[in-house]
Amino acid sequence: MTSGLQEALQQIAADMADQGDRGAVADYIPQLSGIDPNLFAIAVATADGSLHYAGDSHTLFSLQSITKMFTLAIALGRSGDQLWTRVGREPSGNAFNSIVQLEQENGRPRNPFVNAGAIVITDEILAGRAPKDALAEILRFMRAAAESENIHINGSVAASEQAHGHRNFSLAHFLASCGNLKNPAELTLGTYFHQCAIEMNVQQLALAGRFLIGTGTGPRLVALPRVRRLNALMLTCGHYDGSGDFAFRVGLPAKSGVGGGILAIVPGVASIAVWSPGLDHNGNSKLGTLALEQLARAMDWSVF
Amino acid sequence: MTSGLQEALQQIAADMADQGDRGAVADYIPQLSGIDPNLFAIAVATADGSLHYAGDSHTLFSLQSITKMFTLAIALGRSGDQLWTRVGREPSGNAFNSIVQLEQENGRPRNPFVNAGAIVITDEILAGRAPKDALAEILRFMRAAAESENIHINGSVAASEQAHGHRNFSLAHFLASCGNLKNPAELTLGTYFHQCAIEMNVQQLALAGRFLIGTGTGPRLVALPRVRRLNALMLTCGHYDGSGDFAFRVGLPAKSGVGGGILAIVPGVASIAVWSPGLDHNGNSKLGTLALEQLARAMDWSVF
Amino acid sequence: MTSGLQEALQQIAADMADQGDRGAVADYIPQLSGIDPNLFAIAVATADGSLHYAGDSHTLFSLQSITKMFTLAIALGRSGDQLWTRVGREPSGNAFNSIVQLEQENGRPRNPFVNAGAIVITDEILAGRAPKDALAEILRFMRAAAESENIHINGSVAASEQAHGHRNFSLAHFLASCGNLKNPAELTLGTYFHQCAIEMNVQQLALAGRFLIGTGTGPRLVALPRVRRLNALMLTCGHYDGSGDFAFRVGLPAKSGVGGGILAIVPGVASIAVWSPGLDHNGNSKLGTLALEQLARAMDWSVF
Amino acid sequence: MTSGLQEALQQIAADMADQGDRGAVADYIPQLSGIDPNLFAIAVATADGSLHYAGDSHTLFSLQSITKMFTLAIALGRSGDQLWTRVGREPSGNAFNSIVQLEQENGRPRNPFVNAGAIVITDEILAGRAPKDALAEILRFMRAAAESENIHINGSVAASEQAHGHRNFSLAHFLASCGNLKNPAELTLGTYFHQCAIEMNVQQLALAGRFLIGTGTGPRLVALPRVRRLNALMLTCGHYDGSGDFAFRVGLPAKSGVGGGILAIVPGVASIAVWSPGLDHNGNSKLGTLALEQLARAMDWSVF
Repeated sequence: MTSGLQEALQQIAADMADQGDRGAVADYIPQLSGIDPNLFAIAVATADGSLHYAGDSHTLFSLQSITKMFTLAIALGRSGDQLWTRVGREPSGNAFNSIVQLEQENGRPRNPFVNAGAIVITDEILAGRAPKDALAEILRFMRAAAESENIHINGSVAASEQAHGHRNFSLAHFLASCGNLKNPAELTLGTYFHQCAIEMNVQQLALAGRFLIGTGTGPRLVALPRVRRLNALMLTCGHYDGSGDFAFRVGLPAKSGVGGGILAIVPGVASIAVWSPGLDHNGNSKLGTLALEQLARAMDWSVF
Repeated sequence: MTSGLQEALQQIAADMADQGDRGAVADYIPQLSGIDPNLFAIAVATADGSLHYAGDSHTLFSLQSITKMFTLAIALGRSGDQLWTRVGREPSGNAFNSIVQLEQENGRPRNPFVNAGAIVITDEILAGRAPKDALAEILRFMRAAAESENIHINGSVAASEQAHGHRNFSLAHFLASCGNLKNPAELTLGTYFHQCAIEMNVQQLALAGRFLIGTGTGPRLVALPRVRRLNALMLTCGHYDGSGDFAFRVGLPAKSGVGGGILAIVPGVASIAVWSPGLDHNGNSKLGTLALEQLARAMDWSVF
Repeated sequence: MTSGLQEALQQIAADMADQGDRGAVADYIPQLSGIDPNLFAIAVATADGSLHYAGDSHTLFSLQSITKMFTLAIALGRSGDQLWTRVGREPSGNAFNSIVQLEQENGRPRNPFVNAGAIVITDEILAGRAPKDALAEILRFMRAAAESENIHINGSVAASEQAHGHRNFSLAHFLASCGNLKNPAELTLGTYFHQCAIEMNVQQLALAGRFLIGTGTGPRLVALPRVRRLNALMLTCGHYDGSGDFAFRVGLPAKSGVGGGILAIVPGVASIAVWSPGLDHNGNSKLGTLALEQLARAMDWSVF
Repeated sequence: MTSGLQEALQQIAADMADQGDRGAVADYIPQLSGIDPNLFAIAVATADGSLHYAGDSHTLFSLQSITKMFTLAIALGRSGDQLWTRVGREPSGNAFNSIVQLEQENGRPRNPFVNAGAIVITDEILAGRAPKDALAEILRFMRAAAESENIHINGSVAASEQAHGHRNFSLAHFLASCGNLKNPAELTLGTYFHQCAIEMNVQQLALAGRFLIGTGTGPRLVALPRVRRLNALMLTCGHYDGSGDFAFRVGLPAKSGVGGGILAIVPGVASIAVWSPGLDHNGNSKLGTLALEQLARAMDWSVF
C-alpha cells in the first residue's frame, strides 16, 4: 500500500510550490507571523518501518495544537477513563478558542482538542507537580514516540504565547470558576504555553505519530483499543469546526496546529506529517490540507 | 473478516434480551410510542454477498432519519457538489431539531443529517415536482438498494408526523425566510414526513446499505469517491450531538433514526442494520449502539 | 407643561425636513418599500385635552408593531395576570424576530413586543374565535381609544405580510411545538398580519395613546396601575434591542413599528405620535427617534 | 409627596419581619454567606432634605454592584461620551456574570452594570494609576455624595472576592484579548474587588443617592441631563436579567447588589436605600424588591 509513495510526495511538494493562495500565517505572536509562507514539507512513516519525505523536511516548526494529541495520550495513560468526567468527546460546532459552550455546559469542555479541553488535559497531567516536571514527562513521551532526543521547547515562542495568552487565561479562569481546574491557572497555562511551543520537523513528527498506526510500528506507547479511540477523536474533533469538511475531503484522522502542521494517520498503514504555515479561516493549514487530500487520493488512502 | 459472524450475532441478540435499561421509546407520535421496547434485531450484509441476522429480523420498523442517508445520496446524484451551497458538512454541536444555528448561520443548515439539513435535501429532490413523484424516486432508490420491491411508506405514521410536525414546520419556514427553500413548505414537508415513514426490517436495511461498503457489492448506485464522502458525513454527523461518542465507542460510520434503527458501515467489509426502539438522550437507539459496540469488538471491525 | 409645544413641533418638523441621512425604508414588502422617505409627521395629545401636530399629519401609515401595545392592553383586560405564564417581561438582548431564545427558553417569549411574544398575545385574544371576530375587537378598542371610527386595516398590506411572513410562521410553529399556541398557526398569524396592517395618521395615533397618559384623559380603557405597567414594558422592551439606547436618549416609554411610527408617552402629561418611514439598524424610525429626542429636550419631558 | 412616609417605612419594616421566604444569602464568599437573613433596613432621603428610616438602618452591608452606579458616574465625568465606545447601553438578556455576549459581540459589554461592563468602567477610572489612587477617587466621590467620611472598604471582603474571583478574572482576560482592557487584569480587578467591598448602611446609601434625584438636593455632583441618563440605565439594566420585571413591579430606576442592597430613585422626589441579604434567582434582594414595591404603592411613586 505504499508503492509510489516517494513519487507522490515529490509531486505534491512540486504542486504546492506552485500554489498561489497559501492562506494567512498566524499573526497573534511575532514568532509565528514572521514565518515564510512559501515553506512546505511532508513526511510519511509507514507501518513497515520506512520514512519518506519531500520539501523543507528538516525545518523545525511550532507544533502548537498538535501537541494536544500527545498530551491526551499521556493523560489517558495517567488517569484512564475517569478523564472523561472533566472533558467530553463531541465536536463543538464552535471555534477552537470559543468560551460560549463552556458557560452553557457548566465548564466541561466539549472535547480535548478545543483550547479549553486541552487546558484541562494539561491540568490533569500537571497534577500538583511543578510545570517543569510535567513538561519533562510530555517531552519524554514525544521523544520516545519519535525516537529522537533532539526535540525541544522554543522558549521564545513559549514566552510570547504567555504574553499574548489572554484568551487562554480567560478559558482557564472560567474552568476554575466551575471547579474544573485542579492547579493554579498560572501553572497550568505556563505548562500549556510551553507544551505548545515544542518544535519538530515533519520527519520527527511523522515518526512520533507511528504509535497511532495501530500495528505496533515503532515504540509501543498505547494499546490498540485506545489508539482507535484517539483516532476517532482526531477524526471528529481534530480540525475544530473544520473537522467535518476535513473528513469529507481527506478521509483520515488528523490533528492540526496553528503553526501550520498537521499529523494524519492511515490506520494500519502510515503516519503522515505535513507543514505549511498559511492557514484557512478555521486555523488549519491551507496547503497542508490540500497536500493531504492529494496524497490520500494518489495512494487510495481513506478510512472510509 | 466475517468468520464467526453468525455466532457473534446470536450472542449479541441473547445479551440484548437480558438488558434491563433499554432506553425510552420515542413518544411524540402514538405510532412510535406504542412499540414494544423488548424488540431487538440485527442483520449484516457482507461484501462477499452473504446475509446474517438474529432477533426480530422480520419485523418492520420506521426508518425515520436513516432515510436521510438515502436522500442525501439521491440529491448528490441529482445536483452534485452544488448541493453544498445549501447545506454544510460540519457537526452541529446541537440537538437534531435545533433552530439556533439556522438563525446564527443565515439559514444554511450545518449538515444534511440534522432535521433542517435533511429538509433542504428533500427540498432539492422535490425540485418543483409533485411530492408523490419525489417519493416515488426515493422509494425506487431504496428498493433498488435493497433489491426488494416490498418496501413501503406507513401512511399512518406519515399522517401522524404531519400532525405533530410543528418543529419541522418551524425549521422549514425559517429556511424559506432565508431563501433556502425552493418549494412551498407544505410540499417539502409533506414529502419529508412520508419519507421518514418508510419501513424496513433489518434484513432489508442491511441489504440497502451495501452500496456504502465501497466494494461494489450489490447494485451499483454510487461511485467509490462519493461513497467515502457519505461515510465520512455519517461518521462525523450521523448520530447528531452523540456522533463523537459513537465514533469513540463503535468506530464505524453510521446513521441512526428515532424509530430505533441504525445503519452502520464497515468499509470494504459489511453493511450492518440494528434495531431496538428504546432511545438514549440524544435520540439514538440505546441497545442498538451497545450491540454495535459489541459486534465491532467481537469482529475487530473499526475504521480506526 | 405644554406651553411652547406647537412652536416646538413646527421647529422639529422643519429640522427633520433638512436631515440628510433618513435611514432605510423597510423593504420586505412592496407596500412599505415604496413609501417616500421624505415624509414626516408628529402629533401630541395632551392631558388637558388639546391636540397639536406638524408635518404630514393627515397621511396614513402602517402601524405594524405599534399595534402590539394595544393588543397587550386588550389581552391583559381579557386574561389578567395569567397572561404572564405564556410570555415574559424582560428585554431580550436579541433582534425583534429572533428565534434563538425561544428554543433556549422552551417557547416562552421574552416579552410581548418581540414578534414571538406578540404572536402569543394575538393568540390569547383570538381564543378560538374566527380571526375576523378578534380583529373586530382589536379595531373596536383602537377606535374607542382614538375616538375615531375611521380606522381600518389595509388589506393589501395584510396580504403582503402573509405572503412574506415565513419568519413569523417559523416563530408560530415553534410556539406550537412547545405547546404555547392555542389556535392553529394559520389563524393566529392571519389575525396577526391583519392587525399589523392597521393604519392611522399621527393625529389618530396620538389620540389613541391617551389612555396611557394615566390621568384619565380621553376614554377610560385601562386602570392606572396597569397603565404604569404597560409604560414600564414599553420603556424596557418597546424598541427591541435598541430599548436601552432609546431610554438613554429620549427618556420616555415608547413603542415603535417597522412602518416608521413611534408612540411615546409622557406620563401625566401627553401622548406623542411621530412618523417617518426610514429605519435604523434595529428597525426603529431614525428621524422619529431624533424628533422625540428634540421634543423631549425642548419640553423638558423625561420620566427620569 | 412625602407625607406619611415615616409611617409607611415602619409598616414595611414590620411586614418584612413577618416574611417567611426571604431568599438565599449569597454564598460564594464566607463574608456574605454568614450574614443573618433576618436583617432588614430601609431609608429614604427626600428632595426637601429630610431623612427617614426603619429597621436595621445602622448596620453596614457590602454595597457590591451598587458601586457600579457610582463608578459609572465617575467614569462619565472623567471620560464623557467616549466611554460608550467601550461599553454599550442595552439590557443583556443574560445573567450578570455571563461571558457569552462578550464573545458574540467582540468584547464590548452590553452595559455598565453587568460584571464585564463594570470591569471596563473601573478600568477606565484606573487609567494607568495605582489601584489605591483609583480607589481613593471612588471613595472620595461616595463620601462626598453621602456627606460622610465614615465610609470604608472591608478588606476581608475584598480579599475574599479576589480569592473567589475566577469568573471575573475570566471576564477581564476576555476583555483584554479583545483589546478592551487598558490596565493589567490584576490591577483592574484588584481595584474592582475593593470597590465592591465598600460598605454603607442604608442611611448613608440613601444620602449618597441624592445626586440622582435631579433636583439639586445634597452635593452637586452630576448635571441633570446626565442624571437622567444614569437613571435610564438603572431602569433598563440595573437589575440584570430581572430589570424588566423590576420596572414592571416597582416602576423606579434602581441598582441592586449581591450584598442584598438596592438603591432606587424617585426622580424629583427621593432617593431610597433598602437592604435585606436574601436574594432571588437573579441575584437581587428578595425582600428589598418587595419592600420597594410596597413603598412605591403606598406613596404612589412611579416614573410611569
